[in-house]
Amino acid sequence: MNATIVPVELGDRSYEVSVGADLLATVGSAVADLPNVSRAIVISDETVSALYGEKLLDSLREVSLPATLLTFPSGERNKTLDTVGALLDGALRIEPPIDRDSVVVALGGGVCGDVAGFVAATLLRGVRWVQCPTTLLADVDASVGGKTGVDHPTGKNLIGAFHQPSSVIIDVQTLATLEESDLRGGLAECVKHAVIRDADLLNFIAESVDAIGRRDPAVMIELIAWNVAIKAAVVSADERETSQRAHLNFGHTVGHAIETTLGFGAISHGEAVALGMVAANELSLARGLIDLPAANRLRSTLKLLGLPVRRDGLDVDKIWSAMQHDKKNRRGVLRMVLCTGLGKVEIFDDVTEPQVRAAVTLLSM
Amino acid sequence: MNATIVPVELGDRSYEVSVGADLLATVGSAVADLPNVSRAIVISDETVSALYGEKLLDSLREVSLPATLLTFPSGERNKTLDTVGALLDGALRIEPPIDRDSVVVALGGGVCGDVAGFVAATLLRGVRWVQCPTTLLADVDASVGGKTGVDHPTGKNLIGAFHQPSSVIIDVQTLATLEESDLRGGLAECVKHAVIRDADLLNFIAESVDAIGRRDPAVMIELIAWNVAIKAAVVSADERETSQRAHLNFGHTVGHAIETTLGFGAISHGEAVALGMVAANELSLARGLIDLPAANRLRSTLKLLGLPVRRDGLDVDKIWSAMQHDKKNRRGVLRMVLCTGLGKVEIFDDVTEPQVRAAVTLLSM
Repeated sequence: MNATIVPVELGDRSYEVSVGADLLATVGSAVADLPNVSRAIVISDETVSALYGEKLLDSLREVSLPATLLTFPSGERNKTLDTVGALLDGALRIEPPIDRDSVVVALGGGVCGDVAGFVAATLLRGVRWVQCPTTLLADVDASVGGKTGVDHPTGKNLIGAFHQPSSVIIDVQTLATLEESDLRGGLAECVKHAVIRDADLLNFIAESVDAIGRRDPAVMIELIAWNVAIKAAVVSADERETSQRAHLNFGHTVGHAIETTLGFGAISHGEAVALGMVAANELSLARGLIDLPAANRLRSTLKLLGLPVRRDGLDVDKIWSAMQHDKKNRRGVLRMVLCTGLGKVEIFDDVTEPQVRAAVTLLSM
Repeated sequence: MNATIVPVELGDRSYEVSVGADLLATVGSAVADLPNVSRAIVISDETVSALYGEKLLDSLREVSLPATLLTFPSGERNKTLDTVGALLDGALRIEPPIDRDSVVVALGGGVCGDVAGFVAATLLRGVRWVQCPTTLLADVDASVGGKTGVDHPTGKNLIGAFHQPSSVIIDVQTLATLEESDLRGGLAECVKHAVIRDADLLNFIAESVDAIGRRDPAVMIELIAWNVAIKAAVVSADERETSQRAHLNFGHTVGHAIETTLGFGAISHGEAVALGMVAANELSLARGLIDLPAANRLRSTLKLLGLPVRRDGLDVDKIWSAMQHDKKNRRGVLRMVLCTGLGKVEIFDDVTEPQVRAAVTLLSM
């Protein structure tokens, strides 16, 4: 089976992302090919393990690698330190006991990758992990960059670690079972990548809407590989998010605040990011950084994909307050990524409270 | 105030260990001297914070750095993921909210350093930390190497991360309030460093027993700086414990198993390591790696320091079983560090169950 390989260059932490059809059957041999592997600890949520757990375990059995499946309840609300604690407990009670040559295999969407990656980062002070994302959002976002972690009541992803995977294996066949809303969530990140780096990708997405809706494997492979390459270039240049990696937060400052304010689960991550991008472009418009056609191009693409560009009843006070908690802020200064032309963004730390309030207010008008 | 500075060379994670008298008063300026510091989060256990918390907070106030003190209940039994979770929760609820320029300051013994370092490793996916050890064990052991983490019912330090501090500040005045048993615990690690690297240190310890008992500042500074330098050389050569850093586990394979078997709290870490070193040397003797005078030299030094060289009622079956859980094992092969002459050790992976059982049995005879 042919796969498109996208390298992620991170010095001695470099790895490859493989994108193809029916790749889950190859995970066993990929894990066994890593140096000195003693066993696999497969971590998956209950939904995904029911769909693809056996297929993955079969591939590990085929290469005679001891494997244990640990599951946790699905959903962002379970992306907590308690879930990580329960999985660490499960891993540490495996008999015979695991060792540092054990490899965690994450099978699932973004929540699963974040949780399982954090388990791998902290188990025996760090073991290797292989990521098998099963949602478009995880394919194009969580698959690159090594961010792992969990949420806290005061905000998303506030507890975690940077821990790069040894390998990422994306099987586009898993997208067949993806809910429409989750497909849209991934597409929101694809649009983000286009806006911050490559306007051509925006064209490709708009032209491929029908094929994407059918989850056509060839189109999904091209879409995912393109997005992984964009994210890999950004992360390679700035692994620890001291400079341009922050560009990936486009739409996320307001987006995260909307998620926090509404409560996890009341809005999907992708919808929140779509609204966040619209708000960011309203700010860009107000500051004269982009023109109206560019702002409208984002809005029309989001609409074409079924993503929201407005929402009733947003609480501007609460959203502003939640934005103060964003961990990307430094010394209390709000940092926002704003579009300066389709395919280009810059970081601004002089965005004012009235500007933010005006942009967020427009989302409900 | 003059301090002895020992560099720990770890590339872009290098830092310095300062050893001196009355250095707690200088912590504030040391933290403020780090680049871009927004605030301090002081983490200490209840015992140590009552003794030295105000002094440390005063030094932070002097440099006008915002500081918050978070405490947790003292003792190894509280070195758990739950404690880390509670401290993360406390840190994330500080107002105004912390940011990535916040610095954790760990004030306390080994448990505090391990817990606070792990909090720093996982807070906002990693913030800097400054370590202020207050026990001899933490001074000579935990101060170098960046190992952080917590215990699990199946074994010690099974959950954690490597996270180097930005600076370590050792104030020997804090040893004035140290319990005798805790002093002995630190001395066990000093003896270990001597056995694995430098027989001269064994002489210095034996000759300085009285001054050490009085916690004479000048002698303690020399003792600590010497030990830190030994450990720094080992860790610099092998940060991630793939080769010679394992030498530091001398006495710990059996020692950890004894601690696990008796239950945390029933025996001090130092006492367990002393017994572990005696058992390791029994094994060396049985394999002909060292002669009887060398083995006796270790035993007599430990006795001189009030450390145990035998213990009644050890359960050999349970100790052997606990040794199987040691995270340093690879693919189920027991790895042991054995002395091959005072000042020298090697790693062996061919130690048999009968050899271990015989050596452990001798501890109760």
